[in-house]
Amino acid sequence: MVTTGDQSVLKRMNSVALIRLLKSETGLSRADLAKRSGLTKSTIGLLVQELIDDGWLREADITASGSLGRRPTPLQLDPTRLALLGAEIGVDYLNVVACNLQGQLIDSRMQRFEHRQRDATLEALAAMIAGLHRQLQRDGRRSLGIGIGIPGTIDVHGQRICALPNLAWDDLDLRQPLLAALARRKVRALPLVILNEANAGALSEYVFGASQHTEPLVYLSIGIGLGGGIVLDDQLYRGHDGAAGEFGHTILQLDGPLCSCGRHGCAEAFISQRAVSFGVDGPDRPILTIDELASRLRARDPAVVGAVERAGRYLGMLMQNVCNSIDPAVIVLGGPLCQLGEPLIATARASLAALAGRFDAHTTVVRECQFGLNAGAMGAAGAVLHAALRDKVALAD
Amino acid sequence: MVTTGDQSVLKRMNSVALIRLLKSETGLSRADLAKRSGLTKSTIGLLVQELIDDGWLREADITASGSLGRRPTPLQLDPTRLALLGAEIGVDYLNVVACNLQGQLIDSRMQRFEHRQRDATLEALAAMIAGLHRQLQRDGRRSLGIGIGIPGTIDVHGQRICALPNLAWDDLDLRQPLLAALARRKVRALPLVILNEANAGALSEYVFGASQHTEPLVYLSIGIGLGGGIVLDDQLYRGHDGAAGEFGHTILQLDGPLCSCGRHGCAEAFISQRAVSFGVDGPDRPILTIDELASRLRARDPAVVGAVERAGRYLGMLMQNVCNSIDPAVIVLGGPLCQLGEPLIATARASLAALAGRFDAHTTVVRECQFGLNAGAMGAAGAVLHAALRDKVALAD
Repeated sequence: MVTTGDQSVLKRMNSVALIRLLKSETGLSRADLAKRSGLTKSTIGLLVQELIDDGWLREADITASGSLGRRPTPLQLDPTRLALLGAEIGVDYLNVVACNLQGQLIDSRMQRFEHRQRDATLEALAAMIAGLHRQLQRDGRRSLGIGIGIPGTIDVHGQRICALPNLAWDDLDLRQPLLAALARRKVRALPLVILNEANAGALSEYVFGASQHTEPLVYLSIGIGLGGGIVLDDQLYRGHDGAAGEFGHTILQLDGPLCSCGRHGCAEAFISQRAVSFGVDGPDRPILTIDELASRLRARDPAVVGAVERAGRYLGMLMQNVCNSIDPAVIVLGGPLCQLGEPLIATARASLAALAGRFDAHTTVVRECQFGLNAGAMGAAGAVLHAALRDKVALAD
Repeated sequence: MVTTGDQSVLKRMNSVALIRLLKSETGLSRADLAKRSGLTKSTIGLLVQELIDDGWLREADITASGSLGRRPTPLQLDPTRLALLGAEIGVDYLNVVACNLQGQLIDSRMQRFEHRQRDATLEALAAMIAGLHRQLQRDGRRSLGIGIGIPGTIDVHGQRICALPNLAWDDLDLRQPLLAALARRKVRALPLVILNEANAGALSEYVFGASQHTEPLVYLSIGIGLGGGIVLDDQLYRGHDGAAGEFGHTILQLDGPLCSCGRHGCAEAFISQRAVSFGVDGPDRPILTIDELASRLRARDPAVVGAVERAGRYLGMLMQNVCNSIDPAVIVLGGPLCQLGEPLIATARASLAALAGRFDAHTTVVRECQFGLNAGAMGAAGAVLHAALRDKVALAD
């Protein structure tokens, strides 16, 4: 016998299934949903009405056609009433975005930020989030939750922060103080998802981007350092210790150049803003900004050209290794260094092609992340939607 | 309403579940099984009786104890009545094993073999399999199926053979001609599972070995070449193109030594029988046998010691890369080169430890495969059991 509790679980599962169907194929009608889901038309009718009432779905305009009779009404995710908040704590910036269910940016706020103490960062971040949240409220949108991408590792359950190597904070608990800082700004009762920024980048593409529903997906986040994320079986693959996808610390040369992690020859010591900057200016100078690198690249500064091409060549090698170990359907390149564009990306593609062996039959697609510098924050927002569609975040208030 | 067809599906699923419960924890009683499975005691009684009748289970002896009353009868997988056949087509050998449900070797036949034409190899293999099969029949055991490990890649569905780089055969279809060769020898109607030998090695440990039920599991098969296998989510992880786990062709040094695949600097060009032999004798001499290498290693031949230590150092680097990309619970080292023992394995462990960085928190266990040269064939046999326990091979005739 199905009890009331079971029924509400079932109903929620069915609602999630309908949203997922419409996310992967927009424009399905109620009749289509009944056919795909195996649910009765009357059940579909009730569930769709509730999802419309809750802001998840809307009826799309019916385009006029020459055919006779009433056309079934196409449904779609409603881009106007629900919103997702996402943020990224970058090594030298804070970024906050709001987007709708379709992954369209509503607004974003980015500022360069020098991290000193945890609480100062969290206060600044909470103020940025609260600002966007108020704006969403003014526009009549309901926020589903907040995602935060961080430059650090999280345990295998996605709960405890294990390390923030680029932020010299003693206390690694971010959840409670951030929730408190948000509550002081009247942002309350929203689910909070914290994840590694490269994992967030992976979800930006998987939830919203050109690689939607494409897996296995590997995301490489190339910034000051080099992070990575893996999507497998419709979820982030975290490995045994939560450290899967740390491609930046796979070693590309025994006894190679010193890496920020203290080892030698890590991928990050070849492929990162830090590595390119060292290649141009040596290890004792401040890391060159992306703008500086881009402008000197445009001026064909030979030191910058050489350093970027070297990074590109090793990036091809790293992608080759990813293909022969994980064999993903798609590798997505993201992070600030990708702003350098073709000199880096084209070199990396050529290097990957040159290194592919005669027995390789990989059909892995290499793609640039479409969200640019917003990838981490967009993906953190995507993580909230992803959690809702895995029935881990409530669909309604 | 549950129809008859559904009931037989359900019954099979429940039978599989009981076998899996007893495989992971031997000695459970019928009452334990009822508690763990949620099935009624009467259903358990019926299913267990059928599984006993079919040879899957038996009642274990009750050890006497001082306590009063009737003790519940412990059940276990029956090691005496069912058998699994496994074979490996090695680059320079053929190996066939028969084992019981508990992964205990019943018998094995290995012969050195120089492959010329496909059909000659398959005839020899079929003769070896048929010999073991007849012996099992004489002993009153029923064979559940045959698994074959091959030195090549198979497509992502585990069906079509894509490449056999070390065997110069034009026709890559093995299934039909092998079934025909077996039928001519009166071995008929047995399920045939064909898989990559390193994938088989991975299953030998996962299905029968010390790493039973431990995942993510990465297996490295170090022989003439270097293969790999990944177990994830209770199955072989094949990637997008079926080429996942090809760790031997991840590149450890840009512009490094020539690999058998035509590329430079692949892991296989550092860590393999071929690489060690080249390091000792140069590239133009025949590959040294494991026996030759082992005997010269015992005699502390400096060229062999140096070549083996170099292989061990790079093996540590490769394992480091596996940890930072896949982050497995266990890495299992197998294949003929592991017969060299400590000089290789201890060096590799020390190299991995030295290369682990200060931010690493991996708890990955490194283990030698317990099945030695039988790993590929034992794992192929394990693949048959694994398929049965995933409801892909029939439990009964």
